[in-house]
Amino acid sequence: MSINTYGHLFRVTTWGESHGPALGATVDGCPPGIPLDAAQLQQWLDRRKPGQNRYTTQRREADEVEILSGVFEGVTTGTPIQLMIRNTDQRSKDYGEIAETFRPGHADITYWQKYGIRDYRGGGRSSARETAARVAAGGVARAALAALVPGLSLRAYMVQIGPHRIDRDRFDWDEVERNPFWTPDAQAAEVWAGYLDDLRKSGNSAGAAVELCLSGVPVGLGAPVYGKLDTDLAAAMMSINAVKGVEIGEGMNAAALTGEDNADEISMGPDGPVYGSNRSGGILGGISTGQDIVVRFAVKPTSSILKPRATITKGGAPTEIITKGRHDPCVGIRAVPVAEAMAAAVILDHLLLDRGQTGGVRGRIG
Amino acid sequence: MSINTYGHLFRVTTWGESHGPALGATVDGCPPGIPLDAAQLQQWLDRRKPGQNRYTTQRREADEVEILSGVFEGVTTGTPIQLMIRNTDQRSKDYGEIAETFRPGHADITYWQKYGIRDYRGGGRSSARETAARVAAGGVARAALAALVPGLSLRAYMVQIGPHRIDRDRFDWDEVERNPFWTPDAQAAEVWAGYLDDLRKSGNSAGAAVELCLSGVPVGLGAPVYGKLDTDLAAAMMSINAVKGVEIGEGMNAAALTGEDNADEISMGPDGPVYGSNRSGGILGGISTGQDIVVRFAVKPTSSILKPRATITKGGAPTEIITKGRHDPCVGIRAVPVAEAMAAAVILDHLLLDRGQTGGVRGRIG
Amino acid sequence: MSINTYGHLFRVTTWGESHGPALGATVDGCPPGIPLDAAQLQQWLDRRKPGQNRYTTQRREADEVEILSGVFEGVTTGTPIQLMIRNTDQRSKDYGEIAETFRPGHADITYWQKYGIRDYRGGGRSSARETAARVAAGGVARAALAALVPGLSLRAYMVQIGPHRIDRDRFDWDEVERNPFWTPDAQAAEVWAGYLDDLRKSGNSAGAAVELCLSGVPVGLGAPVYGKLDTDLAAAMMSINAVKGVEIGEGMNAAALTGEDNADEISMGPDGPVYGSNRSGGILGGISTGQDIVVRFAVKPTSSILKPRATITKGGAPTEIITKGRHDPCVGIRAVPVAEAMAAAVILDHLLLDRGQTGGVRGRIG
Amino acid sequence: MSINTYGHLFRVTTWGESHGPALGATVDGCPPGIPLDAAQLQQWLDRRKPGQNRYTTQRREADEVEILSGVFEGVTTGTPIQLMIRNTDQRSKDYGEIAETFRPGHADITYWQKYGIRDYRGGGRSSARETAARVAAGGVARAALAALVPGLSLRAYMVQIGPHRIDRDRFDWDEVERNPFWTPDAQAAEVWAGYLDDLRKSGNSAGAAVELCLSGVPVGLGAPVYGKLDTDLAAAMMSINAVKGVEIGEGMNAAALTGEDNADEISMGPDGPVYGSNRSGGILGGISTGQDIVVRFAVKPTSSILKPRATITKGGAPTEIITKGRHDPCVGIRAVPVAEAMAAAVILDHLLLDRGQTGGVRGRIG
Repeated sequence: MSINTYGHLFRVTTWGESHGPALGATVDGCPPGIPLDAAQLQQWLDRRKPGQNRYTTQRREADEVEILSGVFEGVTTGTPIQLMIRNTDQRSKDYGEIAETFRPGHADITYWQKYGIRDYRGGGRSSARETAARVAAGGVARAALAALVPGLSLRAYMVQIGPHRIDRDRFDWDEVERNPFWTPDAQAAEVWAGYLDDLRKSGNSAGAAVELCLSGVPVGLGAPVYGKLDTDLAAAMMSINAVKGVEIGEGMNAAALTGEDNADEISMGPDGPVYGSNRSGGILGGISTGQDIVVRFAVKPTSSILKPRATITKGGAPTEIITKGRHDPCVGIRAVPVAEAMAAAVILDHLLLDRGQTGGVRGRIG
Repeated sequence: MSINTYGHLFRVTTWGESHGPALGATVDGCPPGIPLDAAQLQQWLDRRKPGQNRYTTQRREADEVEILSGVFEGVTTGTPIQLMIRNTDQRSKDYGEIAETFRPGHADITYWQKYGIRDYRGGGRSSARETAARVAAGGVARAALAALVPGLSLRAYMVQIGPHRIDRDRFDWDEVERNPFWTPDAQAAEVWAGYLDDLRKSGNSAGAAVELCLSGVPVGLGAPVYGKLDTDLAAAMMSINAVKGVEIGEGMNAAALTGEDNADEISMGPDGPVYGSNRSGGILGGISTGQDIVVRFAVKPTSSILKPRATITKGGAPTEIITKGRHDPCVGIRAVPVAEAMAAAVILDHLLLDRGQTGGVRGRIG
Repeated sequence: MSINTYGHLFRVTTWGESHGPALGATVDGCPPGIPLDAAQLQQWLDRRKPGQNRYTTQRREADEVEILSGVFEGVTTGTPIQLMIRNTDQRSKDYGEIAETFRPGHADITYWQKYGIRDYRGGGRSSARETAARVAAGGVARAALAALVPGLSLRAYMVQIGPHRIDRDRFDWDEVERNPFWTPDAQAAEVWAGYLDDLRKSGNSAGAAVELCLSGVPVGLGAPVYGKLDTDLAAAMMSINAVKGVEIGEGMNAAALTGEDNADEISMGPDGPVYGSNRSGGILGGISTGQDIVVRFAVKPTSSILKPRATITKGGAPTEIITKGRHDPCVGIRAVPVAEAMAAAVILDHLLLDRGQTGGVRGRIG
Repeated sequence: MSINTYGHLFRVTTWGESHGPALGATVDGCPPGIPLDAAQLQQWLDRRKPGQNRYTTQRREADEVEILSGVFEGVTTGTPIQLMIRNTDQRSKDYGEIAETFRPGHADITYWQKYGIRDYRGGGRSSARETAARVAAGGVARAALAALVPGLSLRAYMVQIGPHRIDRDRFDWDEVERNPFWTPDAQAAEVWAGYLDDLRKSGNSAGAAVELCLSGVPVGLGAPVYGKLDTDLAAAMMSINAVKGVEIGEGMNAAALTGEDNADEISMGPDGPVYGSNRSGGILGGISTGQDIVVRFAVKPTSSILKPRATITKGGAPTEIITKGRHDPCVGIRAVPVAEAMAAAVILDHLLLDRGQTGGVRGRIG
């Protein structure tokens, strides 16, 4: 990860502010010959698009992506792909107060202190709107993965909102697309609906936890010691706005385990090694085992709330702020498609890295 | 992070295997004119050195670091600094069995599958021994930070072993150096001693959680959107062997909070903004606030245990393995100095990045 | 330089094809607080713009640059700056034949062989049109340099077209802006006019050599051993389309010198060291000396000519090609503003790198 | 190229000073399974070794390379390879004067000005001795290329010393190994011997030009627009000490050509396209054509000479310097094996990059 770029070989640089003319992503290093068009990318953007239900911001953005380069006659050419999304619903008047006053829990103050200038309109560069560009870029990665690793699936889903976690016994993949929270637990969706309605009415917001499950990732991706697959996945998730923690497999709970419990026992299956459990989350020594890769992360609650909070102005005067405007009561919800997009980019990047270094040769077992 | 390198401007590439002739770190981009000698680095290595108490591996390594380049007449020259540590206690005979059999929960199998070759002696490149090189490199970063940011302190300490967490009410900085676990809670140290003695006797091992507290970090470090300070800290910790989860500030608990609770209120102090709480862990929008930076991570239990676990051989035959040899009953303990070293490198790197891009200019408040 | 990006801290990624909807540059790492607007960038683009005289392609492009991000209230914010130039004059019908037939001396064949797909319209990604994006990005670098190094000047000029070189005794800076070749030798301009008129009539084209003179570059820029200032300048020039050779100072002629002749003698002036000559071209050991930095490069003749040349089709059939359409009889002319843009980016990048690593501290002399 | 590293996937970081304890190279990203041992690397180092004839420095260095990591049971493991060469013949007393006085034409002054500290012993980091590390690293690249591209040959040879160029009509590959200048023109070798004897006696030194011919490079290597094969080769050569100019194919002479002359006509051969000439030097649009890649570069004369030159001391006092000690009368001679090593690294790097991005798929012709 360099300043505004992620990836080693498949490199994405996002650009743009919430209320500027446009935002987008420059995607470099995509393999050539991959079928790609804007409609394909649009499907992913539509999942992230605000204003689709009462649990996300009511800002209305078409979020229409244009491909400006790198695709010819329907396939990628191997040259940089520029993806642009015009900003259309920029009610700048909503944001007058935050030009002068720092929202607690928000990047307003640090951007100001670091740069001595910030585009305060809608959070500028630090707006969650930046993630639209990630989703578009992730769509390119998905297209390449679909061509290169046919069986791969990348799915994220919500596992916690506020204090309420899902019940793993009720886990049902089919539920994920049926509720506004992308959760596999229908009952949790109901609980969360009530919880968020209450919070929204009182001008408050909620944190959330999202889980990613990547199935069909080939064995051997990841480059120890620093370009580890888990390192890069953790960095990718931590780079999403408002994320405060990332876990692979057992995650923080690994601290509580014994070595005996933690060891995923191995046996020989018809197609290679088979594991008796997946506490590792599909990664050992930074390299994929071929099991499901499981990543979890926590998103802090939206800091733009109607509850008054003590703060200061640019001039240093004490004041209180309540943030009007259209904000997500639970910004974690829209992190679900963002997480999938980031994971797609990381997996494709490591696929290319691996075939670059090793040529895809594998040590045989059996 | 590229394959075996971390950092943007202050770049560290570690090299070496557990049982090869030597291991070390190539440190590039260090500022010139920093006082540095081997004795200074040795103090940090001595903290990580195995065999110091019964809770770490009984392997005896002098872990003596030599500076081969980049230092002249006692100060850094701005050219690459090569740090080498000779391996002296290589009982290769201990590792015969793992040449043919994969330890569950260990990188043995994935290295083999990825590369088709691995130095199996003592875990080769995936050995925790690699972290000695990180500690040496971190010592260089500490020396530079001491010169550039006099008030900075970087301290890690143990907060959990197995199911037993510290009690924050008993937190005492002075305790940290008094017990073999580097924990601020003297009572926890006693509990852990008993817990680990039992585990060790039964040939088992324990996970752990380590916390880092960085005080005196200047405001304005970190480069959104991808080169965020929290992203780079998370990547740095996740790259340490056996780490499975990383948290900044509230971490995974942020999911359970409301926006009202999470907002660290701001007031104006004599030297600038003052925060009423530190749920953010000292980072907002990827940029340091000037508060303490708080990072936590979980280390899984050592996978080399005496408890028999089902596995397979390279030939694909089912078998059981018990790993003799000298292993850490709780590898998390030695992660404490490693975490400090990694944090030092990240902070220095971002300090250089920031003065490169902004020249250290800051937006004024008040 | 990574695949489509140049720079270490000030990083530019260009994107776009000759006949796609747009092309542009993603500029990352610009210092914040730099005054910048589109009009400023436009002045540099207007110098490179085709169709301004009979020695450049008659394609008419407005080459209007839009700033889509990274600038707020007239100054840079420190976040990525997206520069977009719409393609407006895309006569794709001109390019039918080259879809199937490879132009000798052109990248047609290698793009096809490498990627299995290419946007053949107007040369696609390999078109000299890509350099418009470099000029726009270079304008950002110039703006930052104007703020950070007030006395700096970056000037390129033509020193050779075909076999005709300038006479150094007639060197006159004022002439550079008075002739269509940006040459300091008015007589050479006349010779070249006649030479190119003849070539153009016969459907042929000419090579050229361009020189850069960078005055006022601070002492101490450049990072040995591989991030040398001359290495990065050479790479920047070599990356421009059609460039086949690069020289610093004496360049290839250095082979013919003795050590006695080559040593630029040093004396002490009122403001520091003064050099008796500048055979080094202002760089010693990869680091700027404070003298003028002198870079020279050769541009091969345009490969799209009306002279018939033997070639093959995609199907492997032998054929002859003559390239109609609107092409530069001497593409080297438009390389002049491109060279200035690339040099500006390299100098700014090294300025940021240097203050990142050293903080701008300098060893004193005297 | 970052500060002290070159390469994208196959990355080499050299370290060490002329008179420190050792120097070496950290080689990251090497494919696994490549047969490698120290003897193999030694053969290349022995070619570069000083003191072999009267035209190179009389310093005697064994230049014995040790492999400290990354090789197991005779093959590479895919992890970092550390190559170390101990300095054995460090007559530091020879270098007393240059601690205080700057040699004209040498990096003494710029290192001092940039860093405020320099290891002046033997030129420290700026010594040509650094290139021993490049040769060792290049040996690793050669071993990998031998496995991956069996027909590849990488050969450098001298084409000019002082004002005396070779006669291309006398070009004889067999001569290259028969004379101390690695030149294919036996008569030139005689002329140079006399020329250098005279210069050496008078305490002077000579510049030189070296040419590289890379045969059997696969079609399709190189990554436009900035990671071009020619860009990376030019950067690699320009990064070698004392190099002042680099040419690909026609090089600077391309300025003098017409488009008609410059176009290498294409016909169809039994195994694909065949070119009627090679003015491009085997690279079009930054991508290899499959023809011989031809690179040429000029090396300035050694700046450490016995002829007195005017200069200043650190204190700013005017003085004259004559540099005693053991110096190369023509440092370009030892650049021959260095150029081969750098080229090997670049070609391997691009081979890995290409198979990473494209998987080695190629557009078919015919």
